[in-house]
Amino acid sequence: MAKPIFVLNGPNLNMLGLREPAIYGTDTLEDVRKRAEVRAEALGLSIDFRQSNSEGELVTWIQEARDDAAAIILNAGAYSHTSIAILDALQAAELPVIEVHLSNLFRREPFRQHSYVTLAAKGLICGLGAKGYELALEALADLLAQARRG
Amino acid sequence: MAKPIFVLNGPNLNMLGLREPAIYGTDTLEDVRKRAEVRAEALGLSIDFRQSNSEGELVTWIQEARDDAAAIILNAGAYSHTSIAILDALQAAELPVIEVHLSNLFRREPFRQHSYVTLAAKGLICGLGAKGYELALEALADLLAQARRG
Amino acid sequence: MAKPIFVLNGPNLNMLGLREPAIYGTDTLEDVRKRAEVRAEALGLSIDFRQSNSEGELVTWIQEARDDAAAIILNAGAYSHTSIAILDALQAAELPVIEVHLSNLFRREPFRQHSYVTLAAKGLICGLGAKGYELALEALADLLAQARRG
Amino acid sequence: MAKPIFVLNGPNLNMLGLREPAIYGTDTLEDVRKRAEVRAEALGLSIDFRQSNSEGELVTWIQEARDDAAAIILNAGAYSHTSIAILDALQAAELPVIEVHLSNLFRREPFRQHSYVTLAAKGLICGLGAKGYELALEALADLLAQARRG
Amino acid sequence: MAKPIFVLNGPNLNMLGLREPAIYGTDTLEDVRKRAEVRAEALGLSIDFRQSNSEGELVTWIQEARDDAAAIILNAGAYSHTSIAILDALQAAELPVIEVHLSNLFRREPFRQHSYVTLAAKGLICGLGAKGYELALEALADLLAQARRG
Amino acid sequence: MAKPIFVLNGPNLNMLGLREPAIYGTDTLEDVRKRAEVRAEALGLSIDFRQSNSEGELVTWIQEARDDAAAIILNAGAYSHTSIAILDALQAAELPVIEVHLSNLFRREPFRQHSYVTLAAKGLICGLGAKGYELALEALADLLAQARRG
Amino acid sequence: MAKPIFVLNGPNLNMLGLREPAIYGTDTLEDVRKRAEVRAEALGLSIDFRQSNSEGELVTWIQEARDDAAAIILNAGAYSHTSIAILDALQAAELPVIEVHLSNLFRREPFRQHSYVTLAAKGLICGLGAKGYELALEALADLLAQARRG
Amino acid sequence: MAKPIFVLNGPNLNMLGLREPAIYGTDTLEDVRKRAEVRAEALGLSIDFRQSNSEGELVTWIQEARDDAAAIILNAGAYSHTSIAILDALQAAELPVIEVHLSNLFRREPFRQHSYVTLAAKGLICGLGAKGYELALEALADLLAQARRG
Amino acid sequence: MAKPIFVLNGPNLNMLGLREPAIYGTDTLEDVRKRAEVRAEALGLSIDFRQSNSEGELVTWIQEARDDAAAIILNAGAYSHTSIAILDALQAAELPVIEVHLSNLFRREPFRQHSYVTLAAKGLICGLGAKGYELALEALADLLAQARRG
Amino acid sequence: MAKPIFVLNGPNLNMLGLREPAIYGTDTLEDVRKRAEVRAEALGLSIDFRQSNSEGELVTWIQEARDDAAAIILNAGAYSHTSIAILDALQAAELPVIEVHLSNLFRREPFRQHSYVTLAAKGLICGLGAKGYELALEALADLLAQARRG
Amino acid sequence: MAKPIFVLNGPNLNMLGLREPAIYGTDTLEDVRKRAEVRAEALGLSIDFRQSNSEGELVTWIQEARDDAAAIILNAGAYSHTSIAILDALQAAELPVIEVHLSNLFRREPFRQHSYVTLAAKGLICGLGAKGYELALEALADLLAQARRG
Amino acid sequence: MAKPIFVLNGPNLNMLGLREPAIYGTDTLEDVRKRAEVRAEALGLSIDFRQSNSEGELVTWIQEARDDAAAIILNAGAYSHTSIAILDALQAAELPVIEVHLSNLFRREPFRQHSYVTLAAKGLICGLGAKGYELALEALADLLAQARRG
Repeated sequence: MAKPIFVLNGPNLNMLGLREPAIYGTDTLEDVRKRAEVRAEALGLSIDFRQSNSEGELVTWIQEARDDAAAIILNAGAYSHTSIAILDALQAAELPVIEVHLSNLFRREPFRQHSYVTLAAKGLICGLGAKGYELALEALADLLAQARRG
Repeated sequence: MAKPIFVLNGPNLNMLGLREPAIYGTDTLEDVRKRAEVRAEALGLSIDFRQSNSEGELVTWIQEARDDAAAIILNAGAYSHTSIAILDALQAAELPVIEVHLSNLFRREPFRQHSYVTLAAKGLICGLGAKGYELALEALADLLAQARRG
Repeated sequence: MAKPIFVLNGPNLNMLGLREPAIYGTDTLEDVRKRAEVRAEALGLSIDFRQSNSEGELVTWIQEARDDAAAIILNAGAYSHTSIAILDALQAAELPVIEVHLSNLFRREPFRQHSYVTLAAKGLICGLGAKGYELALEALADLLAQARRG
Repeated sequence: MAKPIFVLNGPNLNMLGLREPAIYGTDTLEDVRKRAEVRAEALGLSIDFRQSNSEGELVTWIQEARDDAAAIILNAGAYSHTSIAILDALQAAELPVIEVHLSNLFRREPFRQHSYVTLAAKGLICGLGAKGYELALEALADLLAQARRG
Repeated sequence: MAKPIFVLNGPNLNMLGLREPAIYGTDTLEDVRKRAEVRAEALGLSIDFRQSNSEGELVTWIQEARDDAAAIILNAGAYSHTSIAILDALQAAELPVIEVHLSNLFRREPFRQHSYVTLAAKGLICGLGAKGYELALEALADLLAQARRG
Repeated sequence: MAKPIFVLNGPNLNMLGLREPAIYGTDTLEDVRKRAEVRAEALGLSIDFRQSNSEGELVTWIQEARDDAAAIILNAGAYSHTSIAILDALQAAELPVIEVHLSNLFRREPFRQHSYVTLAAKGLICGLGAKGYELALEALADLLAQARRG
Repeated sequence: MAKPIFVLNGPNLNMLGLREPAIYGTDTLEDVRKRAEVRAEALGLSIDFRQSNSEGELVTWIQEARDDAAAIILNAGAYSHTSIAILDALQAAELPVIEVHLSNLFRREPFRQHSYVTLAAKGLICGLGAKGYELALEALADLLAQARRG
Repeated sequence: MAKPIFVLNGPNLNMLGLREPAIYGTDTLEDVRKRAEVRAEALGLSIDFRQSNSEGELVTWIQEARDDAAAIILNAGAYSHTSIAILDALQAAELPVIEVHLSNLFRREPFRQHSYVTLAAKGLICGLGAKGYELALEALADLLAQARRG
Repeated sequence: MAKPIFVLNGPNLNMLGLREPAIYGTDTLEDVRKRAEVRAEALGLSIDFRQSNSEGELVTWIQEARDDAAAIILNAGAYSHTSIAILDALQAAELPVIEVHLSNLFRREPFRQHSYVTLAAKGLICGLGAKGYELALEALADLLAQARRG
Repeated sequence: MAKPIFVLNGPNLNMLGLREPAIYGTDTLEDVRKRAEVRAEALGLSIDFRQSNSEGELVTWIQEARDDAAAIILNAGAYSHTSIAILDALQAAELPVIEVHLSNLFRREPFRQHSYVTLAAKGLICGLGAKGYELALEALADLLAQARRG
Repeated sequence: MAKPIFVLNGPNLNMLGLREPAIYGTDTLEDVRKRAEVRAEALGLSIDFRQSNSEGELVTWIQEARDDAAAIILNAGAYSHTSIAILDALQAAELPVIEVHLSNLFRREPFRQHSYVTLAAKGLICGLGAKGYELALEALADLLAQARRG
Repeated sequence: MAKPIFVLNGPNLNMLGLREPAIYGTDTLEDVRKRAEVRAEALGLSIDFRQSNSEGELVTWIQEARDDAAAIILNAGAYSHTSIAILDALQAAELPVIEVHLSNLFRREPFRQHSYVTLAAKGLICGLGAKGYELALEALADLLAQARRG
């Protein structure tokens, strides 16, 4: 059976729907998970959807992905801007990575306008809310199909 | 009849497929246009797809969009990094804008890691090649449907 | 007959009255032209009032001014912040130049707080809306009268 | 009777006419005062024209203006570049402010190219010598008339 | 027949001989063209000599060069410092490029001390006036001969 | 019963009294807790006093505070300077926050002179040792009383 | 009799209650003085409460404090950010200093986020309004008691 | 019995041998541990060799070292560049520290060229792969012998 | 009779001998004045020695010097680093100026390593304590003698 | 007899042909000397061709050039980027100087993109290998002929 | 016979033992040479140990090493921070290089925290005094043995 | 007999009187030497006056001074701005040092406004031409007398 796509979410994303709805919308993380599962299924993919507030745990999950996942969708939240450890884990994983952010980071505070994750990502989708996860899945479906075709 | 989505392309995108294929892929701009049209049709949208090497012409097209378009997908190429005039035109247009780039700008030279376009864009999709245009269309379909629902 | 004063307007100024009225006011560029003509006439001056979205066309008009104009009033809009080509054209023109901006640039985004035009301008008037064009005309009337007196 | 416009001048402006005439011209501050009074009268305004070398005294005068003036024209000289205290006083005054400088600051040393005063000013006029005071008065006449009309 | 060398000139170079002769000398652009043609002929080369004030037109000419020219000599004037679009076009052209400037940019204002053109150029000749075009032709004659020899 | 005030302490504060007493004093964290409890009781407040070396655990505690606490006193130690994740959690908590540091950060190394915590804090008390916690409690008592009065 | 604590206030603090109440609250400086006196009395301390718009006068008062005061509470207002002279006076005074600001400077404009006063202060309290003066008095009472105990 | 030397390894070092072998070599962390144990034994030392992906856990281990270790060899991986908390723990530990990195950080990305660990380290060995751990042990053997001799 | 040399001293210099003697020595300002007078007399010069804590008063004294002094020796203390107003007054004075500092500024905090005074000074003597005033007098004696000789 | 042109080469140019041939080519410095001599002879010039690894010796040679040379061609190698002493010597020499570099410095590391030599050079030729020396000789032949003509 | 390892020492290292012993220790350079020789012999290596105050001489020695040495240990002292010429010589030498510093540069002044030598070095050992030379020899013994094994 | 004062001069000072007399005056270095000798004799001091273009030779002379000189007057010319090696030698010399420059460095190019020499100098005298050497001698006479008195 095909390996799943790891959909990993960083700190405070468990507060989605509660936290600053003007920026992040009213969907909860559970809503996002459901939409992602529906789209994945439509694309013939499976997903493993997780959230953690711990940088170290995210590093460990990305290390697991090296063996257990076909690709990674990563919304590392605030750790995107500060974690070189996550970047190193992504580079060691040697998998296709798509970075997703709910809001358009580049219209926010300067310290949110740099992402270490991007340095290891194939592509970036931001500002499109939960929809971004669906689009990332479609993009990965294409990439994985291309890889299979060689 | 519904207004089309303007899909505007900036300088050197007419060289697509010829120019540095390791970075930009082998699809021509005509290929991109066709894929975008197919997806638009599937989503019940129409598009008006254009390319220009002239900053002033892009500004003028964005001004036209204010009256004639439902939304804008903009890949302003090199002008993304230098044109405040395009930013001003986008802000005056008062339309949903999605910024697309074929490559992941944030893994390239430092002068490509800032975009004035982003300051007027709802969302950003980069690094996913021609696929990015399709995803942008789907995101706009959602946004326009939400707007219609209020 | 005396040469006219070129009153040159840069990108997006044709959107005046439509674009962000909280910043730029509700006068259209046509309204500005009329007020400027009335004041010019009162001061015994004539004006040649133009707008372009194209940097190259503005450069060419400033080159024409060298032979055909007595002075230049320039609101280069967004190109004020990015165009060294316009600066070079102004320096080659060897004419009195007054820079005008409708809004007070220095209270806006950092990228609007530097102007290449200023480096070739006698004076700067900003933040006073369409009134700024009238005041620039009065200042030029004085400067030209002084120059005639030697 | 209508409140006067405070025309406040900062350090070294009492040396006008003596100090570096190539930059500042040969008019004395008394000449400037007279021209300003003539123009004010023509516009139906009165002025209260003062100069001080003391930052604290300028702060105090701006505080007085809150109750006693209709508007402020301020040439804070060197304190424009260094005095946050004057900025705070202007923001507390809640009056229309126009900043005037005799020379075009933006063509001079880098440390003269930033003004705290601007952050509280409606508009800026620089590089036009004593004429700048007259133009500022006309601009204020307009602003006050608009305010009366509501 | 051998393809010509495109000799492309940017904004304000049509003012040569008029504009700031202390910096740029008294030769007109026509004089430069004639000297370049004489040298080209002596070297067994032909040239196609053009000037434009429009960034977009320069981009388009460089795109044409991809098919129609053997090499490019480019004096992009002020656009050297601001145009990433010209850089992109040069990189897409995949031709030998020599950058020429009449004056020694590195002794002028800081904003003239960076050139995007250089990033795509084999070599740079600056500060030697019209002579620089002749020397660039000789250098290209050598480079093209080497390329033919393999 | 009224919700407690969360008094949260970051990394290495468990070493208090041992670590660099010249900077941090000889009180242990247990001493600080006791003084805080005494003052809280005097003010009619209760506290929940915790320490963690883990950024993720601090984020989780702040998320809990959203439902379970009336306010937060936070001495995030070294994470103050590096953790955007803690800032995000504080902004999501929507509670009054007072930041406390034992030493005066602004007289120490440059990398200790910026705090992300401050961006979400009502107030800051630093340099006053364990006393700072007591003063923060009094300030919160006032703030909560004001909030109750509306 | 014990020496008083000097409570010194810088420029524009005499406008308190009038100036931008959203930032600074509606208490007047006289209200602040009264609250400080009540708290001082409760702590067995006396205060000498002053305000000046003049940097030089504040320097002179701090010099006086060297002989006449037991400690200093200083809210230098805008001079906090610009006055090295006040820093020098504080360092010469060799007294305990606590810096107070009504608002949380670190959430305001960048130029308000650096304070020379801090470099000579034992501690800093900001963002807590008039309450900050009371807390500073309590902290000083502790510090003076410790000093008496040796 | 003599206390051991703590040899602590940060995030992603558990991936050694798998991750980017061109940079980090093909030895696994277990290989490194064995070489270090052999060398330690030869030098009459014992080691306690650990790895963690968690910043907080590394902080806690360094706090333990204060009582339980004779010295620390620390390869904090990516946390070297971002963790002030680890620096604080090292400073509180008051033990000899040698920093080791497998690769020469100073030839890699700019964000890897600053280490907080260094600020608390006696010495630094980098670029020498697993050999660096052995050399660090020899250097510590010397330092501990010197300390015993006084 | 010959005009005197103004020897002007800025803020906190009246604290000399008391303030940080390790940096500034134990001489009082009165001691400095006496040594300067003795040296001046030996050189056939007279001096007018003053001190002020007020920036505005120093500006006014420098304005007086234009008519009443032969030269200026200026130790502007902390205002050296912050006062453009003093620089402007010195430039308007059109007199020989020698800048003196008791300590070597360039070995102190970064904010003391820039002086606006220097931009208007013939020479600078620092780090030599009260001796610096004597040496400045001798240098001025030379300069004035040269000026008399033409 | 006419004075020679000094052709001076800085550190490591004696390694030419050995050192990084992908950047610097396979010609040795002796080859460069021969090509330069042939061209010089053809232009009616003589050259004095030298190389030194010592900054001080290069300074001394440039000082000699003041009396003994007609012009200088300087490839100062690495000292171009670090030696203000060479700049000072060139400014004292008062001769025409052309700076040559074998490689295009502006496409290499940032620390190679600034040259002190340029500040004293008439022109710059870089990126054209040994050919650059020949072109510099032709440019100097022109400059010297112009100087003779007046 | 095997080529020796060049152990090269830069400016002021001849003062070792005299110069700031708190930073550099009491060993003389002769002591360092002897310890290095003993270790080299134990490892089956020979060394050629030199010191110079001249940048040019160090460059020349590194050029010699290309033919005459098996590897280089370099403590370039102050030239580490300023000499691009030494970097160029090292890159041309194409030998294994280990950089050694007696003190931990990264805990000293900012201008000592960048080394050009590092850009051409395999590894770096600093802060371990004379011991660092011994460890560098052991590391080179390993590297040379690996190279022999292929 | 008392040790002499070393008066050391750096690169290009041998060109004094020839080089840019508008900046450096018309005195030759020999003139400076003579004036210094006369003043030294008058003060009961002897001097050893030297000049070198070589950084290494200046370092060596300063090393000699440690044993052979009572103090150092150093005008290191261009090396003042670039030589950390000279700074290190001065710190190792442990002698009183006075830095002299003929011109006022702080009114010249930015790269001349930082001096490494200053970090090891007691005092600095600049802008006073050859007179500066005389004043430095008098200052040293005082310092040496104080040192003798203890």
